[in-house]
Amino acid sequence: MAALSAQSCGLLERSVRDRFPPLLTDLYQFTMAYAYWRADRHQEPAVFELFFRENPFGGGFSLFAGLQDCLLFLRSFRLTDGDVEFLRSVLPPNTDPAFFDFLRGLDCSAVTLRSVPEGSVVFARVPLMEVEGPLAVVQLLETSLLCLVNYASLVCSNAARFRLAAGHKRKLLEMGLRRAQGPDGGLTASRYTHIGGFDLTSNVQAGFLFGIPVAGTIAHSYVTSFSSLEEVWPQTLVTANGDPDPVDVISLTKGWLRRVCELLEAEPGKIREGELAAFLSYAIAYPHNFLPVIDSYSVECSGLLNFCAVALTLCELGYKPVGVRLDSGDLCSQSIEVRRVFTLCSEQFSVSAFNSLIIVGTNNISEESMTELNKKANEIDVVGVGTHLVTCTKQPSLGCVYKLVEVRGRPRMKISEEPKKTTVAGRKAVYRLLDADGHPFLDLLCLKVEPPPEVGCTFTCYPLGGDNLPVSVTPSQVTCLRKEVFIGGQVTEPLCSAAETRAKVQSSLQTLHPRHKKLQEPDAYMVALSEKLHNLVTELQKGSSNDSNFLLAN
Amino acid sequence: MAALSAQSCGLLERSVRDRFPPLLTDLYQFTMAYAYWRADRHQEPAVFELFFRENPFGGGFSLFAGLQDCLLFLRSFRLTDGDVEFLRSVLPPNTDPAFFDFLRGLDCSAVTLRSVPEGSVVFARVPLMEVEGPLAVVQLLETSLLCLVNYASLVCSNAARFRLAAGHKRKLLEMGLRRAQGPDGGLTASRYTHIGGFDLTSNVQAGFLFGIPVAGTIAHSYVTSFSSLEEVWPQTLVTANGDPDPVDVISLTKGWLRRVCELLEAEPGKIREGELAAFLSYAIAYPHNFLPVIDSYSVECSGLLNFCAVALTLCELGYKPVGVRLDSGDLCSQSIEVRRVFTLCSEQFSVSAFNSLIIVGTNNISEESMTELNKKANEIDVVGVGTHLVTCTKQPSLGCVYKLVEVRGRPRMKISEEPKKTTVAGRKAVYRLLDADGHPFLDLLCLKVEPPPEVGCTFTCYPLGGDNLPVSVTPSQVTCLRKEVFIGGQVTEPLCSAAETRAKVQSSLQTLHPRHKKLQEPDAYMVALSEKLHNLVTELQKGSSNDSNFLLAN
Repeated sequence: MAALSAQSCGLLERSVRDRFPPLLTDLYQFTMAYAYWRADRHQEPAVFELFFRENPFGGGFSLFAGLQDCLLFLRSFRLTDGDVEFLRSVLPPNTDPAFFDFLRGLDCSAVTLRSVPEGSVVFARVPLMEVEGPLAVVQLLETSLLCLVNYASLVCSNAARFRLAAGHKRKLLEMGLRRAQGPDGGLTASRYTHIGGFDLTSNVQAGFLFGIPVAGTIAHSYVTSFSSLEEVWPQTLVTANGDPDPVDVISLTKGWLRRVCELLEAEPGKIREGELAAFLSYAIAYPHNFLPVIDSYSVECSGLLNFCAVALTLCELGYKPVGVRLDSGDLCSQSIEVRRVFTLCSEQFSVSAFNSLIIVGTNNISEESMTELNKKANEIDVVGVGTHLVTCTKQPSLGCVYKLVEVRGRPRMKISEEPKKTTVAGRKAVYRLLDADGHPFLDLLCLKVEPPPEVGCTFTCYPLGGDNLPVSVTPSQVTCLRKEVFIGGQVTEPLCSAAETRAKVQSSLQTLHPRHKKLQEPDAYMVALSEKLHNLVTELQKGSSNDSNFLLAN
Repeated sequence: MAALSAQSCGLLERSVRDRFPPLLTDLYQFTMAYAYWRADRHQEPAVFELFFRENPFGGGFSLFAGLQDCLLFLRSFRLTDGDVEFLRSVLPPNTDPAFFDFLRGLDCSAVTLRSVPEGSVVFARVPLMEVEGPLAVVQLLETSLLCLVNYASLVCSNAARFRLAAGHKRKLLEMGLRRAQGPDGGLTASRYTHIGGFDLTSNVQAGFLFGIPVAGTIAHSYVTSFSSLEEVWPQTLVTANGDPDPVDVISLTKGWLRRVCELLEAEPGKIREGELAAFLSYAIAYPHNFLPVIDSYSVECSGLLNFCAVALTLCELGYKPVGVRLDSGDLCSQSIEVRRVFTLCSEQFSVSAFNSLIIVGTNNISEESMTELNKKANEIDVVGVGTHLVTCTKQPSLGCVYKLVEVRGRPRMKISEEPKKTTVAGRKAVYRLLDADGHPFLDLLCLKVEPPPEVGCTFTCYPLGGDNLPVSVTPSQVTCLRKEVFIGGQVTEPLCSAAETRAKVQSSLQTLHPRHKKLQEPDAYMVALSEKLHNLVTELQKGSSNDSNFLLAN
């Protein structure tokens, strides 16, 4: 797998440092760091875990993304003098000045990160990242890591669901920049929806930074900016085969329009001249890339006729028009009518190019309407998705959390009165168990010190979130889910390009059994504790462990 | 009104240029710009309008925000050589090379922006910004302006709704960074929720850049990181009045804990020593700022008792503890119990500081639960809101659009088969009409060339979105809603600080009649066209205007 070029890498890292200064965090990280420092606990070895509690969108799985940004963030984590001076101004005035010297010297050279690989299929309650290091430092990283993983994973998972809903033959275009949470939200959306399965983006900067194929032609404003054929300039075009004599395309197009109107028995009086001028002008500028939006006025009465006229002109000159975009109304029925007209033109005028014209649909597409699109008859080849994709309307937040599981070698947990907020203590190893068909069926959380489960051996484990009854399982394959990806201030795995991670997502999804991939009411994937881990948690909850102390009890 | 300091301004501008490179836009802006350039139309004077079609969250109003970023973006809009080279690689290969020279020279020196002021109350279908300039340039600005206004206005409006739901006595803390659309989404959220009415943020960088008051103390991980009183260090504290002899706080706190347990008839055996150690350790670090989270284990059985013991210790040493945070369960009933215990302690131990302790509530607060909180008995003084605030769960996108209304002095419009997507043509003036009580009751869109409506004079106008019947109105006051804010490459209005804009939001909201501010089923605010504008639109729709041409009609 090719690593990113040094240049892209440098660019990404610079952009991470600019975008994610260490002060972009919650104040309590610094007040806690001070309290640890004051109690001389700041260097104690500690382990945090990052996970989410429920699969997003009512689904059976999620994708894990944002790791690369986390790695670059860790590598560049350092407070500037300006940062420290600002902290001095907002922390309580009795903060010991020596603490600010400590902050000035902070970095992640003593931090180790073990993580699920970017682009993996993952499940609720499985610790995706383990962050190990000095207590004060790993505490300070919380908000940043959550912020970088939360939205990236959410929008990547959302894209994967759109991909599943769309089926594999349709191309998907992301076009949500204008509806995202500001510029960086938009860039993050373009990047991770591509990784999640979208083919194209409208976002040029995303193409620039991440190599994602970009697409787009014209908007309604372009069409409505024209009012007459006099605005078309130049009014000529040379043929595709390079004949030096330019052809008068105005009269050629008018001729084609007449023939199209006759063929379709359309009323010439309803055709918008401005729209024809816009199409023609665009075709002259980009004769190889003619794909206009055809519903600025009326698809049937104007847009489609104008398109056919200009496209037939292009065909006559040896060019191959690309297609049309529909941006309002009932996309399915319109696309069928549009295809019918294309076929008719192809037969009537013997233009084979009309058989391969593509139809792009863009009109507030949601996961539901995408699923609908897959069920109803339609002729849409490319679907553009904006708002519902980037804002993740169905569930706009993943809710990752970052929980302390060990300090100075002792397991720690939060025992909440809300059972789902109770954490699983202790440092863990995480294994994915596959069945005889190669489908993952169980993610197993063990104590770090336990041996991994053995292939072919039956053992007992305790599923999370159920009735707490043990189950017996026999894996056909066992893989270790997490890898060490950052140690001693260095990233230890090559960073992948967006395209590589995208391929990984698809292959990771491929192994998942269809019953877990169903968009509605999927079967729950099992996540379980090993017997030893289960026992530790039970003891801590009962308070019978050595590590749980009760005051004044005697 | 004080302008922002030159330093803050420089910082903001640098950050805008880094965050918002001109390539962070949709590809079709460049393909359209090329087609305009190729047709020699790129310099034609054009006017676009930015507006949204429906008030967000089913409400009766919105707030307008993001203008400052737009101004800084316009001022710094320039393509680098690297940008242009990338565009060369993604635009069709037959793009005329001279176009790239044109792009290299682009800036906004010929652009004029007229806008509603930042922080104004605004309504659906009112053009908030008018962008005038060379066709190709103002087209290129579309995505960027939408991206900068959309989320800022949405999250600001969301914050205003939370503020209205919370009532004015409660303080509101924004804490959504980890759930936002990545780092910049989080920063934007902190900035505009403060402007919308939040008092505090947990986001340190937002404090740094925008001067927003920051707040926060400790998380559960801090509490669970302690297991025994042996971890408390130092174990002494000097008194608040500066007595040089440090006091042994461990034994003092143990004594207070015993007395609290007796008073409340609590079981000492259920109290977590680690939690007490955490509280004490934090109190020693920040004796003036003691406000721990008390539900890491059990509020009633452990957290509240430990808090009281440490707070009483602080009181004995002359410090004033601040309060507690509740982060799970039923916040209302818990806060009442907590307050009862505070009052009991205050009476029993004669500590008046216990009468002014504050209770902070943070547990997945939505607009609904905030409204609920205002109806049910509770003792919560400060509410922290994260996910639902920053992701705008109820409606995660505002849906601003940017529509062409005039080219070369001729009105333009899009006439869609979906009526709500039809635009209002022509360059406009926008007036806000107030009634005799000083409440705005109508936003009037006129042709630019019309005289403004006169105070005390009755006239006829045509409300948008209704049955198209004219209504008669008589304003008691008339204000012009938009101002020229950018011309000749220069920002012409001083940039306001977040605090100033926040004050403007509150005064703008104050004038709005309560019937439009209702969170549920508000009365619709009227937006209407003047008779002249109505006539123009009707003519263009009928196609009877000179500017609407029909092909082959004769």
